Amino acid sequence: MSTSPLDLPADHPYGPHHLPYGAVARDGDEPWLAVRVGDSALDLASATRGTPWAEALAGPVLNPFLDLGPAAWSALRSWLQARLAEKEGRERLAPHVHPLEELVSHLPVAVADYVDFYAGEHHATNVGRIFRPDGEPLTPNWKHLPIGYHGRSSTVVVSGTDVVRPRGQRKGKDDPAPVFGPSVRLDIEAELAFVVGGATALGTSVPVDQAADHLFGVALFNDWSARDVQAWEYVPLGPFLGKSFASSMGAWITPLAALEKARVPLPGQDPEPLPYLRGRAEHLFGLDLTMEVRLNGTLVARPPYRAMYWSPTQMLAHLTVNGASLRSGDVFASGTVSGAEPHERGSLLELTWNGTRPLTLDDGSTRTFLEDGDTVTITATAPGPGGSVLRLAEVTGTVLPSP
Amino acid sequence: MSTSPLDLPADHPYGPHHLPYGAVARDGDEPWLAVRVGDSALDLASATRGTPWAEALAGPVLNPFLDLGPAAWSALRSWLQARLAEKEGRERLAPHVHPLEELVSHLPVAVADYVDFYAGEHHATNVGRIFRPDGEPLTPNWKHLPIGYHGRSSTVVVSGTDVVRPRGQRKGKDDPAPVFGPSVRLDIEAELAFVVGGATALGTSVPVDQAADHLFGVALFNDWSARDVQAWEYVPLGPFLGKSFASSMGAWITPLAALEKARVPLPGQDPEPLPYLRGRAEHLFGLDLTMEVRLNGTLVARPPYRAMYWSPTQMLAHLTVNGASLRSGDVFASGTVSGAEPHERGSLLELTWNGTRPLTLDDGSTRTFLEDGDTVTITATAPGPGGSVLRLAEVTGTVLPSP
Repeated sequence: MSTSPLDLPADHPYGPHHLPYGAVARDGDEPWLAVRVGDSALDLASATRGTPWAEALAGPVLNPFLDLGPAAWSALRSWLQARLAEKEGRERLAPHVHPLEELVSHLPVAVADYVDFYAGEHHATNVGRIFRPDGEPLTPNWKHLPIGYHGRSSTVVVSGTDVVRPRGQRKGKDDPAPVFGPSVRLDIEAELAFVVGGATALGTSVPVDQAADHLFGVALFNDWSARDVQAWEYVPLGPFLGKSFASSMGAWITPLAALEKARVPLPGQDPEPLPYLRGRAEHLFGLDLTMEVRLNGTLVARPPYRAMYWSPTQMLAHLTVNGASLRSGDVFASGTVSGAEPHERGSLLELTWNGTRPLTLDDGSTRTFLEDGDTVTITATAPGPGGSVLRLAEVTGTVLPSP
Repeated sequence: MSTSPLDLPADHPYGPHHLPYGAVARDGDEPWLAVRVGDSALDLASATRGTPWAEALAGPVLNPFLDLGPAAWSALRSWLQARLAEKEGRERLAPHVHPLEELVSHLPVAVADYVDFYAGEHHATNVGRIFRPDGEPLTPNWKHLPIGYHGRSSTVVVSGTDVVRPRGQRKGKDDPAPVFGPSVRLDIEAELAFVVGGATALGTSVPVDQAADHLFGVALFNDWSARDVQAWEYVPLGPFLGKSFASSMGAWITPLAALEKARVPLPGQDPEPLPYLRGRAEHLFGLDLTMEVRLNGTLVARPPYRAMYWSPTQMLAHLTVNGASLRSGDVFASGTVSGAEPHERGSLLELTWNGTRPLTLDDGSTRTFLEDGDTVTITATAPGPGGSVLRLAEVTGTVLPSP
């Protein structure tokens, strides 16, 4: 009895209810766009030949397809699901399927502008308590707007890329002058990235109620952070070299359409934000994604995305309210996902309370911040239709020593 | 007697000693790359047919040519200068020349990552005095590193593009809650932008002594700033919507090679920066560019670029010291250029001392910050070879009302 790689059990986390998008290649070859089905990559360009989307799917990145907008995203998804639902359809797709184990992943989007938000209340509160123990933990603006800043697009890398420990300036409170060297407080931030599709014109804004039309999908994201570099540089213009050395993104982008069952109401916003950040209830949502952060295999945290304060639609509305334009391929990340509980914190800064409470790993070693050779892997699951589960593509990276 | 548009007086500010790069089009057509000679645009793709650079110059942006690196930049410049120096060469170039008055300008680079520095000591000191009158004007890190942050690449626009007044949140000291609306403190920042060529690998750094190999050229730059939006949002992660609505760049990029005679020593750095920010004397330089800022035609400031504290080579070395990679088309701006004297300040914030000392324009009207309909134009000259003068392409923009 031969089984096709497209014949999947109904509860497979990469079944037809998921269909994340990636870019894969045989080692050294030019990448091609794919949808993950089970443990296989479906070659999109060849599978869709003759359809209205084939041309936009012919390159190595999703940007041209993102330009087509939400009607096209939805139509291709339905087309794929209809074929996967029937034996004859699966047989027609079968020649375009390749085992994932023979392929390497590339970043499936050319990242246009990358913005990092700070939308987790527990994270922002923890950071405030650590660094300003005598003041209010949240800055006065925090509950009025989703705070964010632009990061470096060119150093957003695909999951699996090694991360070279950054060098930079740091200055302890008692140091007379800054010193230079490899970061001694290298951290992670477990985040969710949103991939934007559909360009807008300069001088226009996207309201909350239309923002979801520009949200193509999500990927797990690790915003590696050199805390010592960041602490010394960030006043008054924000994080720069403490972040710009690398940000890792999961290799497969889960369409927002696959997360319909994962949408949950926000935890609640008080005070009510200004009118431009309001929208209809169905356009203000969190996602019931439970993340797991592993350090060298040891589970160190389970950050719950549903605890995030701001909706992704509010983040996008805020980003454009000043007239800033969007391009397909823009990526914005949520900021560190942390829950109310100690084991739900998405950064080592919080998990070790600024290095004062070391973590013990399964091998008996302890960690405050990352050591050379450490591997950090973030995974997540979300509820899918009919009691099924989606597993988001992991984001993983290993720290290499500074040169 | 007929004169060719390439027969220029020796002291023409766009003579063969200058040769800035742009992208132009007849209205509505696809842009093509050009070098400005006198009042004409030389079509680079057609003029260089058969040369090693023709393919890289065939598109609408300079990025492929920037990828070729400094030897190619230098070789094309010499090739053009040799032809322009002789009657026969000029006759061979003549068929590829078009009058500028028939053309519109486009941005000649696809901006990859955009970074804005804060490298002017007088500007940073003025800002500190205005906002922290009781403290040290400079933050403790200022003289140890060139402070910078990432801005929005997609909203870097070519000179001449109208700027829609941004909307956003602001909160005065005595306001109980933030309010939303068009910015009421719209400002300019007169800056110089550096266009980067030559990609580097993630995890590597560019030392000060090699940084000039990545500095293709410069353009005047206006970093429009909504001071009220910025003041409310920028703690703790830096400027975001107060800047991201538009940044205007001059249409013609002056090669750094044209500014050999404009290089001047830095004003002096004390304390001596860390070793990675040091370099040989010839690699630490300012530029003797005198800018002129006009508001509706009235000259309101003459910021001197030679007063800037950090060398562009130090900015680039700092930007990459953490292993951040470069791409051709990266742009970094200097930060506001201000001199020691009141009339040398490059922002209205400083010129009107936070709105407390209005400027009087030639028409008798007064200004603190920008009004709808205002036009700001920044020009600059620099010394060229043999007593000649270069005129950098202006950067201009007009404020449109919020929608």
